Amino acid sequence: MADGARVLLPFDLADEAGGDWPFGLRVDVWDGTGPAPEGDLGDVRLHVLPYGAPCAYDALPRLTGLAVVQSLRAGVDELLPLVPDGVTIANGRGLHDASTAEHALGLILAAQRELPRWVADQAAGRWDPSFVGSLADRRVLLVGAGSIGGAIARRLEACEAVVTAVARRARPAEGVRGVDELDALLPAAEIVVLVLPDDPSTRGTLDARRLALLPDGALVVNVGRGTAIVTAALRAELESGRLRAALDVVDPEPLPADHPLWHAPGLLLTPHVGGGSASFPPRARRLVIDQLRRFAAGEPLANVVRP
Amino acid sequence: MADGARVLLPFDLADEAGGDWPFGLRVDVWDGTGPAPEGDLGDVRLHVLPYGAPCAYDALPRLTGLAVVQSLRAGVDELLPLVPDGVTIANGRGLHDASTAEHALGLILAAQRELPRWVADQAAGRWDPSFVGSLADRRVLLVGAGSIGGAIARRLEACEAVVTAVARRARPAEGVRGVDELDALLPAAEIVVLVLPDDPSTRGTLDARRLALLPDGALVVNVGRGTAIVTAALRAELESGRLRAALDVVDPEPLPADHPLWHAPGLLLTPHVGGGSASFPPRARRLVIDQLRRFAAGEPLANVVRP
Ligand SMILES: NC(=O)c1ccc[n+]([C@@H]2O[C@H](COP(=O)([O-])OP(=O)(O)OC[C@H]3O[C@@H](n4cnc5c(N)ncnc54)[C@H](OP(=O)(O)O)[C@@H]3O)[C@@H](O)[C@H]2O)c1
Ligand SMILES: NC(=O)c1ccc[n+]([C@@H]2O[C@H](COP(=O)([O-])OP(=O)(O)OC[C@H]3O[C@@H](n4cnc5c(N)ncnc54)[C@H](OP(=O)(O)O)[C@@H]3O)[C@@H](O)[C@H]2O)c1
Repeated sequence: MADGARVLLPFDLADEAGGDWPFGLRVDVWDGTGPAPEGDLGDVRLHVLPYGAPCAYDALPRLTGLAVVQSLRAGVDELLPLVPDGVTIANGRGLHDASTAEHALGLILAAQRELPRWVADQAAGRWDPSFVGSLADRRVLLVGAGSIGGAIARRLEACEAVVTAVARRARPAEGVRGVDELDALLPAAEIVVLVLPDDPSTRGTLDARRLALLPDGALVVNVGRGTAIVTAALRAELESGRLRAALDVVDPEPLPADHPLWHAPGLLLTPHVGGGSASFPPRARRLVIDQLRRFAAGEPLANVVRP
Repeated sequence: MADGARVLLPFDLADEAGGDWPFGLRVDVWDGTGPAPEGDLGDVRLHVLPYGAPCAYDALPRLTGLAVVQSLRAGVDELLPLVPDGVTIANGRGLHDASTAEHALGLILAAQRELPRWVADQAAGRWDPSFVGSLADRRVLLVGAGSIGGAIARRLEACEAVVTAVARRARPAEGVRGVDELDALLPAAEIVVLVLPDDPSTRGTLDARRLALLPDGALVVNVGRGTAIVTAALRAELESGRLRAALDVVDPEPLPADHPLWHAPGLLLTPHVGGGSASFPPRARRLVIDQLRRFAAGEPLANVVRP
């Protein structure tokens, strides 16, 4: 039981959590846009990190009595080194699925249907229709078949694409192939979508050799982590005009203003905005309410990524 | 039986139609990019119109012995006045469903996720992420629940939108509402998608009064026919910043270079390219093969819109 324990949250939940709020906990609210609250924070037991706020990690060094850090992100690679061993880390697995998957779909459709061209034509007042590519009937290789990958696959299938998904290990019952088959699958992929976490096993998944296995004109999409692609190798394929790309995540991030990738031909680039859309906050608030209820009741938490 | 009858097609089908091609018919091919074939065309019985070609309608006046015109479009409003009574007209219902539906989805995602902004930021080498709208969880009112409307609904539902569809008459078993409920449904719509044919009953469906029923910030999407929206009324809502729009079809079409709609704020405009993408030709060729087989065998044709 964690009765009376102090928790530090990025938002108030009194309006939506129900009658038994705050479940016997003592709640402080800090949204991470300014300095962390004054005074002693040593008795805070659970901290929900502000999402995408400039000072999101600033309270951590002062939370010396912490038992649990709840991130609202799926990827916690940045967070791991900031949290001492023995403090449980839970992530936001699932919260960003819809948002990130629809961003992936938006990137794919924008590239296939040439939306950047129509944006330029509109600015010029030019009515000049022409035939474009499609998502329907295209062979899509989805590399990463986890929480977000599944949400992407459902959307692609509704769009009548022909989807093959790849994970670390094959799951034959679901039709998911193992990553050991990647080299064999790339030559048939008209679109390849990466949605992998950043870890030593995923870095450089698409290097020059693997990119060369893709057919001419293929579209490379990344909404996982930028490190999964060797940036220089992709840039070379774009500069030669052989491949196209649509990236929400890149390596390095943020991409410096003078980086040549910005202006590579056939590239559509968004600044890591896959997870941050209007479908996220209500889902995040529901997760936090659920986790606090578990924490107050001494039950096992959901989404634990490091015990 | 139409044995030995002459037909004029926009493409050759010998490679894919199978061993019994050309089903006893005499086939001429003309793709509509240049003048119609020389010589007497008075014995052509069936004509498949070239799709989206500059001279698509040029052969019609010389086809004095015509029994059937097959269009590859869903909308045949342009064609009707060009074809004498007594000539059967069949349309391309279904051929464009996937293409047009995915274009609608691309427009919606581009608007909700602010892709035009990211395109501009990329051109400026600016990494400036921010929170955007979503399609997931949004209430979408789909006006037109036919062949393309159904394809759009399936895609929207896979994107976790909350879809209400409207047709001429309610179909309670499918959850489709009647157009008499439109005024009552508009105030709750965060996104309204029009996919209506052009006819007297659909013209001006969204006029100033109905647009005023939409909530602030709503997105108006049109992939049916431009005439379903009163252009000046929509423009006024865009200029005031109250509504947003994403249009593949407009009134008039083509939109003149000096038309003020081009530069209305909050508008994404594409030049009627919904139906013309890579998923269309294979489907069109399959339909034509099937229709020719029926025609040769004297069987009733599919997709007849005017007997
Ligand atoms: N663009 C954005 O704004 C945004 C938003 C949210 C998340 N993300 C990123 O997306 C990543 C994925 O999120 P998720 O929630 O889908 O994670 P997840 O549920 O853990 O799924 C990860 C998937 O990647 C596979 N995988 C891991 N290592 C691999 C390797 N070396 N080779 C091939 N496949 C490998 C896993 O295989 P198994 O199924 O075999 O385990 C699993 O299918 C996150 O880690 C985060 O970095 C980006
Ligand atoms: N953007 C593009 O490139 C592109 C490509 C292809 C087609 N189109 C356009 O899209 C249109 C629709 O195509 P479709 O294949 O989906 O046609 P469809 O199958 O005939 O469906 C038309 C739908 O509109 C409804 N409707 C008709 N009149 C109405 C009215 N006055 N009020 C409310 N609903 C009304 C019909 O209601 P019921 O179900 O009750 O009959 C039906 O649900 C075509 O006519 C064409 O103009 C555009």
